Amino acid sequence: MHNILVLGAGKSTSYLLDYILEKAPTEKLHLTIGDLHPESISDKVKNHPSCTAITLDIFKDEQRTKAIQASDIVVSMLPARFHGKVAIDCIAFGKHLVTASYVSKEIKSLDEQAKKKGLVFMNEIGLDPGIDHMSAMQVIDRIRAKGGKMLLFESFTGGLVAPESDDNLWNYKFTWNPRNVVVAGQGGTAKFLQEGSYKYIPYHKLFRRTEFFDIEGYGRFEGYANRDSLDYREAYGLQDVLTLYRGTMRRVGFSKAWNMFVQLGMTDDSYHIENSEGMSYREFVNLFLPYSPTDSVELKLRHYLKIDQDDIMWDKLVELDLFSHEKSIRLKNATPAQVLQTILEDSWTLAQDDKDMIVMYHKFGYELHSKKRQIDANMVVIGETHTHTAMAKTVGLPVAIATLLILNKKITTPGVQIPITREVYEPILAELQKYGVVFKEFEVPYLGYNPDSVAS
Amino acid sequence: MHNILVLGAGKSTSYLLDYILEKAPTEKLHLTIGDLHPESISDKVKNHPSCTAITLDIFKDEQRTKAIQASDIVVSMLPARFHGKVAIDCIAFGKHLVTASYVSKEIKSLDEQAKKKGLVFMNEIGLDPGIDHMSAMQVIDRIRAKGGKMLLFESFTGGLVAPESDDNLWNYKFTWNPRNVVVAGQGGTAKFLQEGSYKYIPYHKLFRRTEFFDIEGYGRFEGYANRDSLDYREAYGLQDVLTLYRGTMRRVGFSKAWNMFVQLGMTDDSYHIENSEGMSYREFVNLFLPYSPTDSVELKLRHYLKIDQDDIMWDKLVELDLFSHEKSIRLKNATPAQVLQTILEDSWTLAQDDKDMIVMYHKFGYELHSKKRQIDANMVVIGETHTHTAMAKTVGLPVAIATLLILNKKITTPGVQIPITREVYEPILAELQKYGVVFKEFEVPYLGYNPDSVAS
Repeated sequence: MHNILVLGAGKSTSYLLDYILEKAPTEKLHLTIGDLHPESISDKVKNHPSCTAITLDIFKDEQRTKAIQASDIVVSMLPARFHGKVAIDCIAFGKHLVTASYVSKEIKSLDEQAKKKGLVFMNEIGLDPGIDHMSAMQVIDRIRAKGGKMLLFESFTGGLVAPESDDNLWNYKFTWNPRNVVVAGQGGTAKFLQEGSYKYIPYHKLFRRTEFFDIEGYGRFEGYANRDSLDYREAYGLQDVLTLYRGTMRRVGFSKAWNMFVQLGMTDDSYHIENSEGMSYREFVNLFLPYSPTDSVELKLRHYLKIDQDDIMWDKLVELDLFSHEKSIRLKNATPAQVLQTILEDSWTLAQDDKDMIVMYHKFGYELHSKKRQIDANMVVIGETHTHTAMAKTVGLPVAIATLLILNKKITTPGVQIPITREVYEPILAELQKYGVVFKEFEVPYLGYNPDSVAS
Repeated sequence: MHNILVLGAGKSTSYLLDYILEKAPTEKLHLTIGDLHPESISDKVKNHPSCTAITLDIFKDEQRTKAIQASDIVVSMLPARFHGKVAIDCIAFGKHLVTASYVSKEIKSLDEQAKKKGLVFMNEIGLDPGIDHMSAMQVIDRIRAKGGKMLLFESFTGGLVAPESDDNLWNYKFTWNPRNVVVAGQGGTAKFLQEGSYKYIPYHKLFRRTEFFDIEGYGRFEGYANRDSLDYREAYGLQDVLTLYRGTMRRVGFSKAWNMFVQLGMTDDSYHIENSEGMSYREFVNLFLPYSPTDSVELKLRHYLKIDQDDIMWDKLVELDLFSHEKSIRLKNATPAQVLQTILEDSWTLAQDDKDMIVMYHKFGYELHSKKRQIDANMVVIGETHTHTAMAKTVGLPVAIATLLILNKKITTPGVQIPITREVYEPILAELQKYGVVFKEFEVPYLGYNPDSVAS
């Protein structure tokens, strides 16, 4: 019997828990879920014969260490800042660890000890980071195995609303943490490589430097650059690549419209507005516009952002009730970003029967036998229900699959790692396919940004 | 005999030292200048019979404390971060202290001890902060003495090039620390009050929200908002004022042109460019533009910033040799702001015979006998020589005058303070007039931003 301990049963864990319980009879698994509020776990999961749900406060050392000691492997779905405590216990008691979070310095520092004890500490094995690593490395390794030399790698991911639930002018709803969407792109200039040239985009231009992507059956998307596209240059072995560009996908037109908020200063999270509570949405907008005793907030905004009378951008703002005298802010001394988030939540919260969608798009440019070639690969996953979202599937399934592969000694290389080795990505991607997480690949003409090698 | 110790003999001290030495015979003063490099002090000052120049390293406790002990008053013209050490010694040995710097928390914390020992710790007594405090409070106190109620206060200051040396398209040269000019406006959203409404301007819009000012004989200027216009609200007693707006003055057109650098991301000081050394100015510009194998840097920039063919903004860039293939960057892994600074220094460094200019513009709106009124006041100071600049005069003279007034027990109120009381500003402003630092006042119609009290 294998004992799996899952810490944290938040909204991204539906598929994770289902998968483990589905495999429980054949794989002889017992699942323990430790959560601050186990009562909120669904009955179907909680009452499953192979499942025990316990109250677990991560800060209560006895509760935590007891649960970890009793397990064979620990899956931490807690917020990333709590992984450190768990990881230290895993070292102490000799347990494997799986998380979907970025490798922190704290976790990284345990690498040597994990290796010494033969423990697998698998991180970044959700969606992005996670499926992006695995699907990219599978193609890159294949190109290299044929003798190809990588020239270009681009990778974009987006959490969006499914076409059937896409019913607002922004073609967007919150399918994940709204705060991350509001502050996206802040905290540093975007940095990437195009044809060997470094390129830098400041935050206030980020949403005006998008690229387009077409996905058959789903139409056109756009992408804006992540903060540091060069983050995985070494991990992927792409030190010599000419183009390295990673980003976030949205429906066409979102970024240009979002840029209005950026230009106004509404996404700023660095200061608190005086007396935000009770302020109307209209008054909030007016904070960012020049004073006038007579001109309307509407006309001031149109003039400030140069929005023509017949520009659909305008209707996107109106759709959010941004000029409402009646609707008011309920937050005290909030930052502009916090206020904007609540305004958007009025309009962009998923309805009970809305479905979400995950899209991912990779481009691999390479040279083989003196010829430049390109493979494009994309993945689309549509959510099933309110709880069984595409986000929960693409984050939770790879975590669950990795957990079983570690238990079954299919993944054995010890140490703190991310899923970029064949040992890890091959079986996980194969298993994901059975659940509809599939990449479609296309041989396309090598486009790059300088197909004719013209000197700039 | 009074012993004055001046710490730091940098470029802003010419008038300060001259004034003390000019008064030395009649006032029975002896001046000791403590500097890391006393050899660089001019012979005229160094060899003056009332002056002793000594080598003083602020970090050598014995040197420092010995010099402070031997003085009656200490003037610190060191960088602000060094004032703390000096101030603690001044408390220990019972010496008055004068600085032109903002009151730090460290200095502020010595208030009680200074008061207990009867010591005057005068700060912010240079130009801005300094002359702005004094000239504003003189008018505000006068309005209040007549029974007026303050409605509006605006104050703008600029360090510019004198009209006779104004020979470039930007109407600007560096007359002070160039770095402060390049990063001006960063580090926080600008915040001010207009007619009772809070207004917030993000950095990327700061240079597009300027106001104009006319000064007779000098033409038109523009001003952009400082980071926090509300900083001195309490100190000035302006808690109930409807409009409070402080900023920086430039010649008309500067801000709109400077905004090009902001939009491109060239003023960013938060990251380092890979391999900046040896990069041409043109390559530097291209870092911030989309990649193209064929289009020129010029056309990409014109398109990106929407600069028409006949827009003088373009010529301002060309004047800086920004598109030069030949000129190259000599800094290793520099930030964009550091690179931009060196590019601008090529063009904007004052020539030996260039003169600088300080301009200040205040607006005071108030109600008296149920009538709204306004006083505008402005000051223009032109530099005399390369060493005797308007900046050195307006920073150094108030410091010197305050020092003598403290020694002569004309300023006696002890404690950590800024020059906002009549005891301080009256004698200093009167003495400054003798040196040509004069405010011209005008009664003007009350303009405000809502003269007809229309509801917005």
